[in-house]
Amino acid sequence: MNLEQLKQEVYEANLLLVRYNLVISTWGNVSGIDRQEGRVVIKPSGVPYQTLTPEQMVVVNLDGSVVSGKLKPSSDTPTHLELYRAWPDIGGVCHTHSSYATIFAQAGVAVPCLGTTHADFAPGDIPCVPALSKEEVEAAYEENTGKAIIREFAQRKPLEFPGALLQWHGPFTWGRTAQAAADNAQVLEQLAFMALETRLVNPAVDRLPSHIRDKHYFRKHGPQAYYGQG
Amino acid sequence: MNLEQLKQEVYEANLLLVRYNLVISTWGNVSGIDRQEGRVVIKPSGVPYQTLTPEQMVVVNLDGSVVSGKLKPSSDTPTHLELYRAWPDIGGVCHTHSSYATIFAQAGVAVPCLGTTHADFAPGDIPCVPALSKEEVEAAYEENTGKAIIREFAQRKPLEFPGALLQWHGPFTWGRTAQAAADNAQVLEQLAFMALETRLVNPAVDRLPSHIRDKHYFRKHGPQAYYGQG
Amino acid sequence: MNLEQLKQEVYEANLLLVRYNLVISTWGNVSGIDRQEGRVVIKPSGVPYQTLTPEQMVVVNLDGSVVSGKLKPSSDTPTHLELYRAWPDIGGVCHTHSSYATIFAQAGVAVPCLGTTHADFAPGDIPCVPALSKEEVEAAYEENTGKAIIREFAQRKPLEFPGALLQWHGPFTWGRTAQAAADNAQVLEQLAFMALETRLVNPAVDRLPSHIRDKHYFRKHGPQAYYGQG
Amino acid sequence: MNLEQLKQEVYEANLLLVRYNLVISTWGNVSGIDRQEGRVVIKPSGVPYQTLTPEQMVVVNLDGSVVSGKLKPSSDTPTHLELYRAWPDIGGVCHTHSSYATIFAQAGVAVPCLGTTHADFAPGDIPCVPALSKEEVEAAYEENTGKAIIREFAQRKPLEFPGALLQWHGPFTWGRTAQAAADNAQVLEQLAFMALETRLVNPAVDRLPSHIRDKHYFRKHGPQAYYGQG
Repeated sequence: MNLEQLKQEVYEANLLLVRYNLVISTWGNVSGIDRQEGRVVIKPSGVPYQTLTPEQMVVVNLDGSVVSGKLKPSSDTPTHLELYRAWPDIGGVCHTHSSYATIFAQAGVAVPCLGTTHADFAPGDIPCVPALSKEEVEAAYEENTGKAIIREFAQRKPLEFPGALLQWHGPFTWGRTAQAAADNAQVLEQLAFMALETRLVNPAVDRLPSHIRDKHYFRKHGPQAYYGQG
Repeated sequence: MNLEQLKQEVYEANLLLVRYNLVISTWGNVSGIDRQEGRVVIKPSGVPYQTLTPEQMVVVNLDGSVVSGKLKPSSDTPTHLELYRAWPDIGGVCHTHSSYATIFAQAGVAVPCLGTTHADFAPGDIPCVPALSKEEVEAAYEENTGKAIIREFAQRKPLEFPGALLQWHGPFTWGRTAQAAADNAQVLEQLAFMALETRLVNPAVDRLPSHIRDKHYFRKHGPQAYYGQG
Repeated sequence: MNLEQLKQEVYEANLLLVRYNLVISTWGNVSGIDRQEGRVVIKPSGVPYQTLTPEQMVVVNLDGSVVSGKLKPSSDTPTHLELYRAWPDIGGVCHTHSSYATIFAQAGVAVPCLGTTHADFAPGDIPCVPALSKEEVEAAYEENTGKAIIREFAQRKPLEFPGALLQWHGPFTWGRTAQAAADNAQVLEQLAFMALETRLVNPAVDRLPSHIRDKHYFRKHGPQAYYGQG
Repeated sequence: MNLEQLKQEVYEANLLLVRYNLVISTWGNVSGIDRQEGRVVIKPSGVPYQTLTPEQMVVVNLDGSVVSGKLKPSSDTPTHLELYRAWPDIGGVCHTHSSYATIFAQAGVAVPCLGTTHADFAPGDIPCVPALSKEEVEAAYEENTGKAIIREFAQRKPLEFPGALLQWHGPFTWGRTAQAAADNAQVLEQLAFMALETRLVNPAVDRLPSHIRDKHYFRKHGPQAYYGQG
């Protein structure tokens, strides 16, 4: 894939956040990576979605140095780069303050796996990563945010669990492409919403039993999948 | 009705799910049946609603064999077929993960009949069918899902109670046509939403008294109905 | 005003229910009256808003006999007529199953006056009228619904309190015109929503003190009003 | 800036309230000030947003006398003027009855700083100003509303805390321009919504720790800010 194509893709993935109703103001950003060239394309900082253009996308190296683009990259760029460096099989990263994922983050609570809708997305809870310490914030806030996520995922495959909450902050999601990262942000938001409301109906609700959870997850993912046209 | 007409109808009923705000991503499917020919038309698996066309609809026999269509049918097709085989008077089936119906399903709670809006739809609670056992899931998940619904409805007329929740999963609805099945999905979603919120206002609320429930149900359904232009 | 004009007005007021997001399916109806001629214009029963035309509006006398129109009038027509007969200063009536007003009705709880937004609409709680008895339902359900509202309002001026909830059913609103009745349905829905959520934040919240309630009500209504351009 | 330009800006800021879904009916108003000329431009009272034009904007002096405009200014004008007189660095004021900000106002509860989304907006809770006494209401309701806000903000910088709730009433917001005031109304609404829902997930949730709160606030505001393109 060439860089112009990636800029177009990342641009479109950022606009998905608006279409999916996940952002107001400028509260979100999506990036994509060209692994061969080692280039990351990301939304410029603080630019409204209404006036965004593919040309405004910023190209950076994996060390954060700007390769091209007239604008400053998203202030969350160091978090994206940490994830790309740690996880070679992801191709896109997304950060939003979408309402219900942020609500669980603020509450410091993982999004519990309460149904097959969740199991179609991930085979278990979406974790809430503990907030950074004063020292971590002061040293390198955005970079350490990435490190905290990676630490939490030491025992998880990132493509199986394509998202995390940052305590008191909000969701990060990822996937094979920039669009997949944005799509996963939409799904995580819906799962968080339904989990909150499910507990209003039944505060003592159990998690989805593992035999149904695994049936649904592997119906849609992996070599035995039979959902879709793939 | 000829098959091309049915494909168009089923296509339109699938798009109703988007218009009714019942689906995100590809999370829903509607089918319709031609009883004379024994053909079922259903949405293809995993195809986004934005690019769906009437030609993409898949035609299957009641035993599940594909008659025509280049795409794989919905992975939930065996559930639809079970319902068509068991209930000769239904003409359409719909499955979604609409928010509030799914929330009640995740909570394992029937949608209680708390008002005349519900009684206009069905003369009593919309049941929550218990989740399948490990054996049932492993043997034939989608087919056994249909059987579990049918078991639960042994004492109910399916056209009087045009929907059910599957525990930890979500709603299935049905009706005389594909469109009726989709319309019933919209109503069930609204009833679930209002039931949840009603109990937030008054956790001890009683069910609608039977004299009002039956008045409303039979005002709209059956030989004494006087609602509408019929 | 001539009858064609009134039909147009009632038609437009019915479409407001869609624009205000108060109805799905065919769940609502608005009427208007020509007091000089003693004619009531009302939505036909069970006709979808998408295909509704001004010509389809049904004209009835105050005794319920159809004057003109090819379609059957709303099944709630006898309730509308009761209100017109009892309250000579109202010119429009509206019935919906809008979500939050219906939720309070199902809960059997009045919409409490918890803020200035409510006081701009009415100087006190919007009452919940107790459900009809079996005898009342069987004798003349829709007509007795009107009578129950009128009974509840014996000590209230209908134009000061322009709406009521029917227990287990939903809201009726009214006003000087068909449009005012529809506008009041929109406001009542918003007040019910905010009241429910206010009690989630603070279950022990007090009603708005009377000195602020009256200031707001009379700022907008009556001879001392100074809101608007009137 | 000339007056025609300011009228256009204030007009557009009022329409933002509709676009941001913060108002129904005529429930909101935005103003802007030309500090050099001492002129305030504000929405006319009770005019629907659908028919609003830039020419209808009303121009008043800081003492409230109308300079130009055929319509009466918003009945809340004296509150706007109080704020402009007390705080020389604000350029726009906005008042709405947006749902969740009004819900917190009705509950008499400050919007707590529960996450980084809030800290991006203000470095602490958005206060709820106690309701006016009977004497204050009777003497000069709208003017005293402004005075009550100013009193509450004696120890705060208005541009650091760009909004307040009035108990039992709703939110006022402000900023350097009319548009900023409207934008702040959108953010405050979202913060109130997320705070309410966060406490449903975790009623005992703590406020955002100060080291993260300050990091986020100063990342976006003040001389050390590095968010955006500024």
